[in-house]
Amino acid sequence: MNETPRGPRYQQISRQLKAAIEQGELVPGKRLPASRVYAQELGVSRATVEAAYGELVAQGWLERRGQAGTFVSAGVVPGPVATESVWYGGEQPEPQPFQMGLPALDLFPRAQWARVMGRRLRTQTRFDLALGDVCGEAGLRTAIVEYLRFSRSIECLPEQVFITTGFAASMMLILQTLGKVGDKIWLEDPGFPLIRPLIARQGMTLCPIPVDDEGLCVEAGLQRAPDARFALLTPAHQSPLGVALSLPRRHQLLDWAAHREAWIIEDDYDSEFRYQGKPLPPVKSLDAPQRVIYAGTFSKSLFPALRTAWLVVPLPQVAAFREQASLAACGVPLLWQMTLADFIREGHFWRHLKKMRQHYAQRRQWLEQTLVEQGFSVVPQQGGIQLVMTVEGDDRELARRGRAARLAVQALSDWRIDSRGKSGLLMSFTNISSLAMAQQQVRMLAAIIK
Amino acid sequence: MNETPRGPRYQQISRQLKAAIEQGELVPGKRLPASRVYAQELGVSRATVEAAYGELVAQGWLERRGQAGTFVSAGVVPGPVATESVWYGGEQPEPQPFQMGLPALDLFPRAQWARVMGRRLRTQTRFDLALGDVCGEAGLRTAIVEYLRFSRSIECLPEQVFITTGFAASMMLILQTLGKVGDKIWLEDPGFPLIRPLIARQGMTLCPIPVDDEGLCVEAGLQRAPDARFALLTPAHQSPLGVALSLPRRHQLLDWAAHREAWIIEDDYDSEFRYQGKPLPPVKSLDAPQRVIYAGTFSKSLFPALRTAWLVVPLPQVAAFREQASLAACGVPLLWQMTLADFIREGHFWRHLKKMRQHYAQRRQWLEQTLVEQGFSVVPQQGGIQLVMTVEGDDRELARRGRAARLAVQALSDWRIDSRGKSGLLMSFTNISSLAMAQQQVRMLAAIIK
Repeated sequence: MNETPRGPRYQQISRQLKAAIEQGELVPGKRLPASRVYAQELGVSRATVEAAYGELVAQGWLERRGQAGTFVSAGVVPGPVATESVWYGGEQPEPQPFQMGLPALDLFPRAQWARVMGRRLRTQTRFDLALGDVCGEAGLRTAIVEYLRFSRSIECLPEQVFITTGFAASMMLILQTLGKVGDKIWLEDPGFPLIRPLIARQGMTLCPIPVDDEGLCVEAGLQRAPDARFALLTPAHQSPLGVALSLPRRHQLLDWAAHREAWIIEDDYDSEFRYQGKPLPPVKSLDAPQRVIYAGTFSKSLFPALRTAWLVVPLPQVAAFREQASLAACGVPLLWQMTLADFIREGHFWRHLKKMRQHYAQRRQWLEQTLVEQGFSVVPQQGGIQLVMTVEGDDRELARRGRAARLAVQALSDWRIDSRGKSGLLMSFTNISSLAMAQQQVRMLAAIIK
Repeated sequence: MNETPRGPRYQQISRQLKAAIEQGELVPGKRLPASRVYAQELGVSRATVEAAYGELVAQGWLERRGQAGTFVSAGVVPGPVATESVWYGGEQPEPQPFQMGLPALDLFPRAQWARVMGRRLRTQTRFDLALGDVCGEAGLRTAIVEYLRFSRSIECLPEQVFITTGFAASMMLILQTLGKVGDKIWLEDPGFPLIRPLIARQGMTLCPIPVDDEGLCVEAGLQRAPDARFALLTPAHQSPLGVALSLPRRHQLLDWAAHREAWIIEDDYDSEFRYQGKPLPPVKSLDAPQRVIYAGTFSKSLFPALRTAWLVVPLPQVAAFREQASLAACGVPLLWQMTLADFIREGHFWRHLKKMRQHYAQRRQWLEQTLVEQGFSVVPQQGGIQLVMTVEGDDRELARRGRAARLAVQALSDWRIDSRGKSGLLMSFTNISSLAMAQQQVRMLAAIIK
């Protein structure tokens, strides 16, 4: 197929406009010529100009204001990466320094993975082309059950496991199955910000609950929103502060959920990565009243492009979850699920986790040590794949400056809702592969924020 | 890891119970012994019995009625496959005779696909492990743009294309982006039933609109629900009746949408498969007012386990769709999208479609001819991957009998909402690979329903 003549031409125009915006020639709020006028000026069709404008509107560079015309977007600032792109990956092929939410991309055994998937690919039968179980493949669910039993002291049946395309999809499944418009949900404050719009979009009321050095303040939750229907939290290693939810709080939380018939959503996103001491078992392992929904993901323990996460739901809720899941088929391709099941069953997953714990302990130490040497202070944490350094002053402004220099640090204040407390910068060390690299990146950061 | 001792034991018990239900020893409504009592009887732990019960509750064989105990589900009928399993595939490895929603599994070029994916697998870089664009990979979106231009006369930009994990996920994305609770939506009556619960779950009001020999009766829609926000339809080849929406109706529909600012959702699920005559171009190709959202899928043209579909949205809506899509990352794995883009770009997709059109014309003819020889009448259609045969009497009862004999026919009445009209059985011919197979399956069907 040939490209239409308009293809390259409109892209040429949109590139020129984008460059003009980036170089400050076209400033935010500036009105663009009407497409008819601009088309005459350039000697192209009006559709070509419309296509160029449309592309830039789609990318957020321009905005349309009805009859008034097309304008350079008010919010356009050249360079910086939006918060979303930090989580979901931008268009840059290479991760930026300190970029969060990514495991160590250099250490994943790609060749091993390719062998396991290649074997499945070659032995695929025609029946593997049809849709599988709406809740996920039996083989993968069984592998997850065994992993959870061995590694997280959770006893469950394969039927309780639901395979999804990621944590956001898991949250959607939970809220659509058990929630209704107006339900209240406790959220950790500070806590992972990028899941909030999804929850709000479902019509839920977000109830921020403070976090102290024992984790989520259950007492505050009981006072502020005792009638909440959900509590979403990261008990193993609070994101971002890194504290573990204390045992008394765990029992208090379970008592509340049992008494009020509320649901605890345990986000166990990084519990595999603890480098010293023995972690508390998950709240799910204490779940006698059957009120805990456990959410796990392979995005951190394997890689994000895998698009595979899972839920463990209480037995009495399995039928309701299955009904909701059957409104759409399981989004993870069958071959993908079978490959993952093999990868776990054959021990590659365990070996990889073991290796990563050593590497992450080392990489964390490189970053922490370098920060301390540069006079920064780091919040002590037992594990995890991110780090918080405390700063003086406006952390949002510091983070903005960092991002303008392509350092993907985040402001602790951007993870807060109502809570007040120390300022800080969040950063990841997972892709720092040497002490020299840590030193170079920290020097860049210091030059900008000191 | 070892299996816990309870693993096999509870499954043994649940298998025995299931067999007892299937053989009618335990009838629907029958109360089961309390787990404590039954555990003593069997000499196992109470937890083992609870696990067996739990499994069967999850599978729908048993139901719990609070304090009253555990009962054999009222709805349990041995054998038949639920409607859901027909769409999403049951646990049977092999498709059942006449099973709908499946392309020809025997004819997909698995080896070719494995080669294309194998190449991507081997050359994967570490940057391919991070998340890609929330709307889908540029390469795949461009390949789809070229396919649509060439094959469906649709002109669009890659930015307008959104990659999803299937038609249900596409519908969710549309409704969550553009819809709100209480919005009305026109649905074809009769029409594809399995999407209705998903739409209803979003709080929309379903407005069934009759279909005649020019397709959806737009006039009836204008009378019954002129203020609807959406119209969901299959203009190319109405599912299940097979008529094409006439050109005057297309213009009438577009006028309504433009005037009322409503959205037309064009489900072009099987338009590739027309075996005679030239199809009308899609409504999207006439979409001057920019009110059409075009929904395509690879489930029928490649295979369902691919879990890949797409939307083309009007340019002014791209930003809103992107915002909604960014609440969760794109669910289709990067490697998967890159493989699919290669498969299209290298011409394998075209060759496959061309081959399938010939085979489907042949397979359709085998089934149609055999049905007519057996004295059945078949509704004439220009293409598609399913067929409707008219029957006398209660088609629901006939379909039930068919399914009990593992013939996956569906009743036309089950696709109706309010409409009255002829009775019929819907069936697929895509997996009928010889005239002899058609004859054998039709003989089985005739023996049951005549």
